Amino acid sequence: MSESTAGGPLAGVKVVDLTTVVVGPICTRTLADYGADVIKVEAPGGDLLRTMAEGSRHPGMSGKFINFNRNKRSIVLDLKKPEGHAALLRLIRQADVFVSNVRPEALARAGLDHASLAAENPRLIHCSILAFGRGGRYFNRPAYDPVIQSLSGVAGTLARATGEPRFVPMVMSDHVSGLIAAQCIGFALYRREKTGQGEAIDVPMLENMASFVASEHLGAMTFDPPVGPSGDGRLLSPDYRPLPTKDGYITVRPNTNAQAFAFFDAIGRPELKTDPRFDSAASRTRNARAYFQVQREGLGHKTTDEWVDLFDKLDVPAARYNSIDDLLTDPHLKDVGFFGEEDHPTEGKIRRTRLANTFSGGQRRQEGHAPLAGQHTREILAEIGYSEAEIDKMLTAGSVMEKPGR
Amino acid sequence: MSESTAGGPLAGVKVVDLTTVVVGPICTRTLADYGADVIKVEAPGGDLLRTMAEGSRHPGMSGKFINFNRNKRSIVLDLKKPEGHAALLRLIRQADVFVSNVRPEALARAGLDHASLAAENPRLIHCSILAFGRGGRYFNRPAYDPVIQSLSGVAGTLARATGEPRFVPMVMSDHVSGLIAAQCIGFALYRREKTGQGEAIDVPMLENMASFVASEHLGAMTFDPPVGPSGDGRLLSPDYRPLPTKDGYITVRPNTNAQAFAFFDAIGRPELKTDPRFDSAASRTRNARAYFQVQREGLGHKTTDEWVDLFDKLDVPAARYNSIDDLLTDPHLKDVGFFGEEDHPTEGKIRRTRLANTFSGGQRRQEGHAPLAGQHTREILAEIGYSEAEIDKMLTAGSVMEKPGR
Repeated sequence: MSESTAGGPLAGVKVVDLTTVVVGPICTRTLADYGADVIKVEAPGGDLLRTMAEGSRHPGMSGKFINFNRNKRSIVLDLKKPEGHAALLRLIRQADVFVSNVRPEALARAGLDHASLAAENPRLIHCSILAFGRGGRYFNRPAYDPVIQSLSGVAGTLARATGEPRFVPMVMSDHVSGLIAAQCIGFALYRREKTGQGEAIDVPMLENMASFVASEHLGAMTFDPPVGPSGDGRLLSPDYRPLPTKDGYITVRPNTNAQAFAFFDAIGRPELKTDPRFDSAASRTRNARAYFQVQREGLGHKTTDEWVDLFDKLDVPAARYNSIDDLLTDPHLKDVGFFGEEDHPTEGKIRRTRLANTFSGGQRRQEGHAPLAGQHTREILAEIGYSEAEIDKMLTAGSVMEKPGR
Repeated sequence: MSESTAGGPLAGVKVVDLTTVVVGPICTRTLADYGADVIKVEAPGGDLLRTMAEGSRHPGMSGKFINFNRNKRSIVLDLKKPEGHAALLRLIRQADVFVSNVRPEALARAGLDHASLAAENPRLIHCSILAFGRGGRYFNRPAYDPVIQSLSGVAGTLARATGEPRFVPMVMSDHVSGLIAAQCIGFALYRREKTGQGEAIDVPMLENMASFVASEHLGAMTFDPPVGPSGDGRLLSPDYRPLPTKDGYITVRPNTNAQAFAFFDAIGRPELKTDPRFDSAASRTRNARAYFQVQREGLGHKTTDEWVDLFDKLDVPAARYNSIDDLLTDPHLKDVGFFGEEDHPTEGKIRRTRLANTFSGGQRRQEGHAPLAGQHTREILAEIGYSEAEIDKMLTAGSVMEKPGR
């Protein structure tokens, strides 16, 4: 199966993906979802995410791995053997994009630094996802997502809100940096259409997440000298959260005067409409803590559904609170068919999320299943010019491995 | 000043930006940072973010606004007046990209739906950032970031970790969806080089954030029927957070056997190396809660600096914990010049974050200051063909407004 006609804005783009776990795989899943032909290069042990996450029907195919690796093909190469290494170089020579999340010194040792690769394929776009950028003292240090959340201020935002540093319980630095890497690759593909030239892109996670946090919370410390403390006081208020109702939680966000005044009437506190703390958007921002406290205290006497109906009528932005499991039954997500059914050839019936975004110029048509490690070794080697006899020899020598799917 | 030669991968791309607050502005700031000429279209009152965030030297130029709007130019148009509306249409006719975060029914009422615009400019890429996607029952409902965090399961991840639903104290849904919108625009620009055709892109926030959460936490519920409960148990463990030392906090992430065993020795618990709960990556994943508890209990007797030095020698990924304010003094961020100095013509000396990512093919050279509302009204109108006399007449009639910068 060649995927050059998969459809989608990136149809025809060939990506060699030397990444593992989340930060690289979410980048290349994004490219694949929009039509690129992504070849996932795995070491003989396979991507660690196959086994380190809980929940699978068969070893090596965890739910989390499946979610981050749909629409890709897998080839297993032993890069320590010359033939495995040569096969990777041949793949890269014919590719548009090479994505790695290997430490740069290790990449250079393997001859996979950009200068070496560009000499053979000047149109190559090489995106290096790094923990820390070049020129700083942490460059080449190992890091995982929580290390970046700890250093970048992400955990610091929760400390300001709750008094205790805590990670966002998702691999947020990996996930966001990977999405940004896909974004950067899109921009470089666009430029290559103009110039004919590839290029090297560095995407350092710490710098990206520090930029995320600073954009939101530098605030008054944007100025030098600062005109006040850092932090967006609204977002850091202790009661800035889904608020308890009679039977659960609700999130309500009355921002404009019309919304705020309707809200005060609804909770039976009409006098607050002329309270100088709350009578304008600016005063409500200045008194955010008190405003959220009023909200928390006002919602306990009706059920979530009663409030949602009422606020809907009043055009006050509000919504119920969904637990992770509630996503599966959310009525809007049901309407749009967000969770689809996939019949995976080896893993059976699974839930597959729909692409969130739509492109009127056409979406990917051929949907690919998350691959077994080495499922496409043979077909990919044949595509880049190896003969059947050569492939058999490499398989026997263990420089490449395969595991045919069903 | 024409910015077509700003440099960067998106140099020469003209963007008309009809967005406010964060979700749209972070999308267009990204395009601007990489070289696009972004024209920020503001209503006579200006973008709400100018005033709703705390911390400014002058009204309308909050630190948060400045952070999300660098490298853009601003034009103020009164779209309720025919001449203001006509000026917007003329801008869009000459643009490559139009980004909106206006509710679709309001866009259509204003004749700004994609079909109408594409008839005049078939190369236009129109990106609509929506709260909720078409075809679902919440479509056209108003929403702000916390509403999306509440519905998408983001708050639900913190509930699983701490027992109480809470928002990530950043406008995470806005910020991530805006980054994804910029990503989608890059893909569409690439496709347009192949096809010559523009297109319409919908970026619905709920669907994007539900996809973010589901990818991370659907886990064993990826399978139908589920093979276990949802959620990545490691990320949801109560002690998955920066852990207390003698004088502060540290984040340590011993994942491989080599790292974990070195860690057990370092905290004086060598017997855990052969404990069946912790003797392999798989067993540590199964016993994540207990593993994090061991970590929490083992770190209180040395200072953060002592631990960081020790783990550095042992090649165990670890890092100190930075509060938001600590970002300004982080040694790595200092090394890379992450916080630069900008002399803003009206707001004085400010801190400006460096671009996180580097492109060897060239970065944006001309750095633009965050604009006053209407600072570039006159020059932009002149660029799209209005005469001096026409501009003066529109200013007098109040269909456009200006506020010259220094």
